[in-house]
Amino acid sequence: MEAITELSYALDTFYFLVSGALVMWMAAGFAMLEAGLVRAKNTAEILTKNIALYAISCIMYLLVGYQIMYGDGLNAVIPGIGALIGDENTAKTVLAGGDGAPYYSKLSDFFFQVVFVATAMSIVSGAVAERMKLWAFLLFAVVMTGFIYPVQGYWKWGGGFLDQLGFLDFAGSGVVHMTGGAAALAGVLLLGARKGKYSSKGEIKAIPGANLPLATLGTFILWMGWFGFNGGSELKLSNIAEANSVAMVFVNTNMAAAGGVVAALITSRLLFGKADLTMALNGALAGLVAITAEPLTPTPLLATVIGAVGGMLVVFSILSLDKFKIDDPVGAISVHGVVGIWGILAVILSNPDATLLAQLIGIASILSWVFVTAFGVWFLIKKVMGIRVSEAEEYEGVDVGECGLEAYPEFVGSRGASS
Amino acid sequence: MEAITELSYALDTFYFLVSGALVMWMAAGFAMLEAGLVRAKNTAEILTKNIALYAISCIMYLLVGYQIMYGDGLNAVIPGIGALIGDENTAKTVLAGGDGAPYYSKLSDFFFQVVFVATAMSIVSGAVAERMKLWAFLLFAVVMTGFIYPVQGYWKWGGGFLDQLGFLDFAGSGVVHMTGGAAALAGVLLLGARKGKYSSKGEIKAIPGANLPLATLGTFILWMGWFGFNGGSELKLSNIAEANSVAMVFVNTNMAAAGGVVAALITSRLLFGKADLTMALNGALAGLVAITAEPLTPTPLLATVIGAVGGMLVVFSILSLDKFKIDDPVGAISVHGVVGIWGILAVILSNPDATLLAQLIGIASILSWVFVTAFGVWFLIKKVMGIRVSEAEEYEGVDVGECGLEAYPEFVGSRGASS
Amino acid sequence: MEAITELSYALDTFYFLVSGALVMWMAAGFAMLEAGLVRAKNTAEILTKNIALYAISCIMYLLVGYQIMYGDGLNAVIPGIGALIGDENTAKTVLAGGDGAPYYSKLSDFFFQVVFVATAMSIVSGAVAERMKLWAFLLFAVVMTGFIYPVQGYWKWGGGFLDQLGFLDFAGSGVVHMTGGAAALAGVLLLGARKGKYSSKGEIKAIPGANLPLATLGTFILWMGWFGFNGGSELKLSNIAEANSVAMVFVNTNMAAAGGVVAALITSRLLFGKADLTMALNGALAGLVAITAEPLTPTPLLATVIGAVGGMLVVFSILSLDKFKIDDPVGAISVHGVVGIWGILAVILSNPDATLLAQLIGIASILSWVFVTAFGVWFLIKKVMGIRVSEAEEYEGVDVGECGLEAYPEFVGSRGASS
Repeated sequence: MEAITELSYALDTFYFLVSGALVMWMAAGFAMLEAGLVRAKNTAEILTKNIALYAISCIMYLLVGYQIMYGDGLNAVIPGIGALIGDENTAKTVLAGGDGAPYYSKLSDFFFQVVFVATAMSIVSGAVAERMKLWAFLLFAVVMTGFIYPVQGYWKWGGGFLDQLGFLDFAGSGVVHMTGGAAALAGVLLLGARKGKYSSKGEIKAIPGANLPLATLGTFILWMGWFGFNGGSELKLSNIAEANSVAMVFVNTNMAAAGGVVAALITSRLLFGKADLTMALNGALAGLVAITAEPLTPTPLLATVIGAVGGMLVVFSILSLDKFKIDDPVGAISVHGVVGIWGILAVILSNPDATLLAQLIGIASILSWVFVTAFGVWFLIKKVMGIRVSEAEEYEGVDVGECGLEAYPEFVGSRGASS
Repeated sequence: MEAITELSYALDTFYFLVSGALVMWMAAGFAMLEAGLVRAKNTAEILTKNIALYAISCIMYLLVGYQIMYGDGLNAVIPGIGALIGDENTAKTVLAGGDGAPYYSKLSDFFFQVVFVATAMSIVSGAVAERMKLWAFLLFAVVMTGFIYPVQGYWKWGGGFLDQLGFLDFAGSGVVHMTGGAAALAGVLLLGARKGKYSSKGEIKAIPGANLPLATLGTFILWMGWFGFNGGSELKLSNIAEANSVAMVFVNTNMAAAGGVVAALITSRLLFGKADLTMALNGALAGLVAITAEPLTPTPLLATVIGAVGGMLVVFSILSLDKFKIDDPVGAISVHGVVGIWGILAVILSNPDATLLAQLIGIASILSWVFVTAFGVWFLIKKVMGIRVSEAEEYEGVDVGECGLEAYPEFVGSRGASS
Repeated sequence: MEAITELSYALDTFYFLVSGALVMWMAAGFAMLEAGLVRAKNTAEILTKNIALYAISCIMYLLVGYQIMYGDGLNAVIPGIGALIGDENTAKTVLAGGDGAPYYSKLSDFFFQVVFVATAMSIVSGAVAERMKLWAFLLFAVVMTGFIYPVQGYWKWGGGFLDQLGFLDFAGSGVVHMTGGAAALAGVLLLGARKGKYSSKGEIKAIPGANLPLATLGTFILWMGWFGFNGGSELKLSNIAEANSVAMVFVNTNMAAAGGVVAALITSRLLFGKADLTMALNGALAGLVAITAEPLTPTPLLATVIGAVGGMLVVFSILSLDKFKIDDPVGAISVHGVVGIWGILAVILSNPDATLLAQLIGIASILSWVFVTAFGVWFLIKKVMGIRVSEAEEYEGVDVGECGLEAYPEFVGSRGASS
């Protein structure tokens, strides 16, 4: 029997590591998606932000975040700095068995969790693109990944009050995506729209992304990575029932994204008369965000429908935000924030343990915590060092100003043409 | 013993899911490959086609395709709509054991199979690029993935007459690749060549792809994904003999692709005096297609040779198709159709169970079924709504006409330059 | 018990295959990284080199390399040609058990090892970019992957004298990365700098890469692939202790890369006043190279520091090489060579079994073997067929001269602008 426990432990650990590697891969997905949707002159900077935020997320979560989230909430901050991720399980503890015995490596859990933090932070970078100061953003990333995210993560996944209340969020429509969306919204409100986006006469100018194949690649990367994101969140694989559950999560994740694509394409065709590629991409992501709070209990057909509603919703949300002059170059607030809320509510369609009340409390708690603290931090950074680049730098492109180089030095003939 | 069965079930299910995720990733590979090989003005549309066809494949295969293919062929269409993918295995059935007992999750099987359908459909999109109406293509995708593909899939992998006849096709040189190539050929014949490709004097104009790094990335993605495509098709991993087989499939898949690259490079060097990158890419893919019908029984050296023959063949096939004025912008008919046939025939080189007759019957049956039905469907669509965009739209690029946007709005100075 | 051994064998084999697929994926990473960092006119050629060198690596390692490295060193060359990778393990041998019994598929080992060879070779291609003859490079690849690499690989991983001496190199900071860097340096010294890089007055001209999103994508791909590179190098997963070790390797690999990014960004900000994206990318890679010699024994915090030192080091190394007029367009010699040395030395920080002496002997032995033989081979090729393209071809771009096509035919207005 001990040999079986050893093997089972190894399989579950491997399942976590493979899932984690897929979620890490989502960092590349966000980088490509956002780089494809901004203008050429702001591309190098958003790439820098994306790789830097991933690195910062890992370091901050190692230093304090993980301890806050899976230790004892805020009480764990101070010991956390020393304690870090704690000791690995010994074979003795594992083989002792019993209900609370660990069945996979603690370090594999850390690896899986740390890439989630980076995902939440990646969501923010797209929304504030093309006009925010790089170092202001990175400073925000430090606070967000070391503090804001882990605290609400503790509420649900660390066993805090939202968990005890019965709030259900399988892989993080709320804990990860809505959180990213709320922090992004706070930043965008303080930052203002890009120059020229909204005219004084109320006209909305489309500012097309410079490289749509890149944005499409990013979407496919995210779609693939989501199999790790949702699939790994079952947290166990090593018996028949759990393996069946993981398989169901894979199928539903895939179907929801498919539903999102088709719905967004049809919606954009009906609204604009064209099959808008960027809407199809946002539709895929919306489908994925929508199913993330509950990818296990729906049938594949229901998962398709949940994704399709997300795909429709995202189109209308993007159009609506523009009416409120909330300028989000990549649609991140709509995809992750608005559709994240839909995902949390959709849990009640198939999971008998879910209650509307608990889901609403979860939404309200996370939204208000993240929005208020994020707003405060953005506000403080704005006062101290400023968050917006100069008008000249915005016109010139943030690449040259912030990074001292251009993303495509040979492709864009004249600066003027790209503004 | 039950604990071992549980663990073994979990491992085989995980193996399917990881393989399936790799095959899903091939959708990104096709999208990048095709986007890199068309002109800038037609890039957004082919990206839209690729993400939409993947979504449609998943939905149609869920609704009817899987039921046709692994149910009871055409007899299963009607109950299929309700039955969908059926019930998941219970622990009881699994643990009961016996020869027919399931040893991995049914849903993981669905996931693995559904991504194959999308692969077959992806093949078609490249061949008809730069001139086909988007919605005509998507309509064809509905019929192809819900009906044409599953019926011939049933013949072989569902236990139909080709299987009983001894036709061997391990991972689908025929069922997937030749099928895609045949459907593409039917479409291209009805669609005609791109304007300016063939002059009335018999001259063939090279129309270079706009973004070769993208095409190269797509090829590498496909190469990687093929480890799931072929590797997962062993269908079992959980004992010594099966694990050895899966390892052999990985090695042979890799070696065949390597052989294809080298052969295509040398061939193109001999024919043109240059190391043509696009031929090297097609050589890699040809090597992969060639080994797909039998990646298990050849030695790694023979696998390299089988791939190398594929790599040579694809160069000559691409040149020949142009002589017949069959205009295939990405070489899909050659890579998947022509080399697919070679792959099916190559089975007899190493697998003693294969007979030339059975392989020929397999080729003839699949080819004629797919070509005839696909031709019929394309023909019908042509009559009802048309399949070709207007000459003005073709000149302008299908991106603006079909999708209402441009893939690289800042990179291409003048429309005229890109036509 | 036999059933457990079978399952354990299957799991370890699968772990090798998944790890190998991730390392294979690094080939795409190098291709994208290098393609993004050269000028547009030299992009197709470097893509051709990358896919061709991967193919050649696989074939040469199958034919002779694997036999040299894991057979009996040079004594194994001649029988190697026939023997190839030898027979697969039988169930009988495996189940017999005992200390020397195989516990995973020999073919899966070959697959995992073969992709390492390609990695070493990929390192070279970037350093000699934009001016070397394609076929001279490919000829060098044949000798490097079939002979130079396997011989020193045998010294350490094949059980040769470096292994017996106590030289420690977990996953190849030395065997793979320093080896690639040394071979690259030899080539660059014989090849000379690109025209215009260093003026006679001692000025150094920055020659920016044409496509930084591509370079960023390549870096993310490499980062992901490194989980296979280091993670798979534990060589066993199937019990509690080994699973914990693999998890530790994943975490440390990730943290070192994160440390490298942050350190390189801060260093470049202090030196240049800007957040140089290419330095951030090189920082990530440097962090990964630095941790590769010992990703198991450091704590995650120490791993972050080891990576951070690598990230700082790489910036200074790149600046220093330019002062010596050693022209390395992508920084490969710095990232893999210089930081590889740091990685080998850093083993003594955490592994009590390491001695400074053994590490220094390892560095000296591998460096001198690779540099001397590589220099000899480059020299011979230079004498016989030449290694550098003509000045006219260099000015025009090697794409047209060597490959007969352009990577971005529509994006770059005038040839002159890109030179």
